[in-house]
Amino acid sequence: MRSIKLTIAYDGTCYAGWQFQPGRTTIQGVLEAAIQSITGAPARTMASGRTDAGVHALGQVVALRTDCRLEPDVLRRALNARLPPDVVVLEAAEAPPDFHATGHARRKRYRYVIHDGPLRAVFRRNYCWQTFARLDAEAMHRAAAVLRGTHDFRSFQSSGADRKTTVRTVYDVFVRRGDADQGDLVTLEIEANGFLYNMVRSIVGTLAVIGRRAKPESWMAEVLRAADRRAAGPTAPPQGLFLVCVTYDMTGQPPAEADRPGYVKTDDLGAE
Amino acid sequence: MRSIKLTIAYDGTCYAGWQFQPGRTTIQGVLEAAIQSITGAPARTMASGRTDAGVHALGQVVALRTDCRLEPDVLRRALNARLPPDVVVLEAAEAPPDFHATGHARRKRYRYVIHDGPLRAVFRRNYCWQTFARLDAEAMHRAAAVLRGTHDFRSFQSSGADRKTTVRTVYDVFVRRGDADQGDLVTLEIEANGFLYNMVRSIVGTLAVIGRRAKPESWMAEVLRAADRRAAGPTAPPQGLFLVCVTYDMTGQPPAEADRPGYVKTDDLGAE
Repeated sequence: MRSIKLTIAYDGTCYAGWQFQPGRTTIQGVLEAAIQSITGAPARTMASGRTDAGVHALGQVVALRTDCRLEPDVLRRALNARLPPDVVVLEAAEAPPDFHATGHARRKRYRYVIHDGPLRAVFRRNYCWQTFARLDAEAMHRAAAVLRGTHDFRSFQSSGADRKTTVRTVYDVFVRRGDADQGDLVTLEIEANGFLYNMVRSIVGTLAVIGRRAKPESWMAEVLRAADRRAAGPTAPPQGLFLVCVTYDMTGQPPAEADRPGYVKTDDLGAE
Repeated sequence: MRSIKLTIAYDGTCYAGWQFQPGRTTIQGVLEAAIQSITGAPARTMASGRTDAGVHALGQVVALRTDCRLEPDVLRRALNARLPPDVVVLEAAEAPPDFHATGHARRKRYRYVIHDGPLRAVFRRNYCWQTFARLDAEAMHRAAAVLRGTHDFRSFQSSGADRKTTVRTVYDVFVRRGDADQGDLVTLEIEANGFLYNMVRSIVGTLAVIGRRAKPESWMAEVLRAADRRAAGPTAPPQGLFLVCVTYDMTGQPPAEADRPGYVKTDDLGAE
């Protein structure tokens, strides 16, 4: 069995999310059907993580275990000829036989797009959260800074999720308003060693409360410290969320201590 | 009866075009239904021109004749509360009682977007023509220059159309490749005192033949001179086309001689 690492992009609007579900149209479902139509054998894929219905990906990573002997780039082109117009394989590459798309992921980067202009954004409606109320993007940016570092992000995890640890390390986070003809767009980007269920959407929903000045910037630190979902703002809707990229360590080595989810760096706790 | 000038934007993807058709979902159909739900009376609207199925508008102009006494901006907000998420009224303004959205239009501007990157553009698929073959945008730009001025554009009119005259004046036309992360987008913009049926899409289809170097730049002048549809390239698909704006003369005066469709300026003919 070979392992092939597929990097794919998709518009999640018409899908019930990544994960295969009988009777629903899912990204995994259409991808595995396309693979099977090429190899003739049932396909087994695993993504870096699930994305929910309506959530998009610019660079989702999928591990494919297969007996098929096609060159990765030939497979990529054959898949693109069979996939629907809203899913594309950007890259296909040989991976180590034990490549694990979820377990070997070291960092993930997400983008969330808000449109806060007064008028409905007809062309962006499936690709942003339309607040119809102006947000203070600079206040959101300053408030988001407390997320940087290693923290217990339990406040930003949707109920029902069951993770061993709710501690994650955020390497980068910013909020900024677009330039020129993108002046009605407010974009958040966040990179971490892992995300809890609905973590980005809960963070965005909380920051938006600050952005419309219903709470002060300092509220973000309070919510984080509370380690309680009820302390946070609402969960922002799915259509503004994009999985931007996933970074792997392909050496097969275990993650460096600081990259391991759950690792708590004393300095960061102090800084908090 | 008052006349109200509505400026609307729409994503044409899910519509069978502007024009009302029984049993089909059209922009005019959903707009008139929204108006009737506010005023209680059947609505009568007329646009600056029809757009085909899949064609978009950033600033279509619609004349509404109504007895309704709402302030234009109140009407605008009431309409936006009732319209589907892919149609929006950007502006509503009182117009002279005899305002005629088609007859009083002096200039129209269209944009056509091509994506010529090697990979499927999943997020732009409904908003561009994907050629999958690289185009020489500069050659297209130079070739398009011969369209400027007053000419018989019969070569760029789809068969079946029946216009009194096929002479139009093009005020501005350019083709350019996008910067930075838009490097796979080639955009044409064209402004004229009027357009024949499928004129922009025929022009784009013809320029694309030049862009992929199947014909020399000088071919554009040949096609124009031929005054024969069979001389031109194929018609580009609808989803790349956007009606950008429509310019009116609200003075009620007849158009200046040079703005009248069919007017032939001797200099332009000479330059051709």
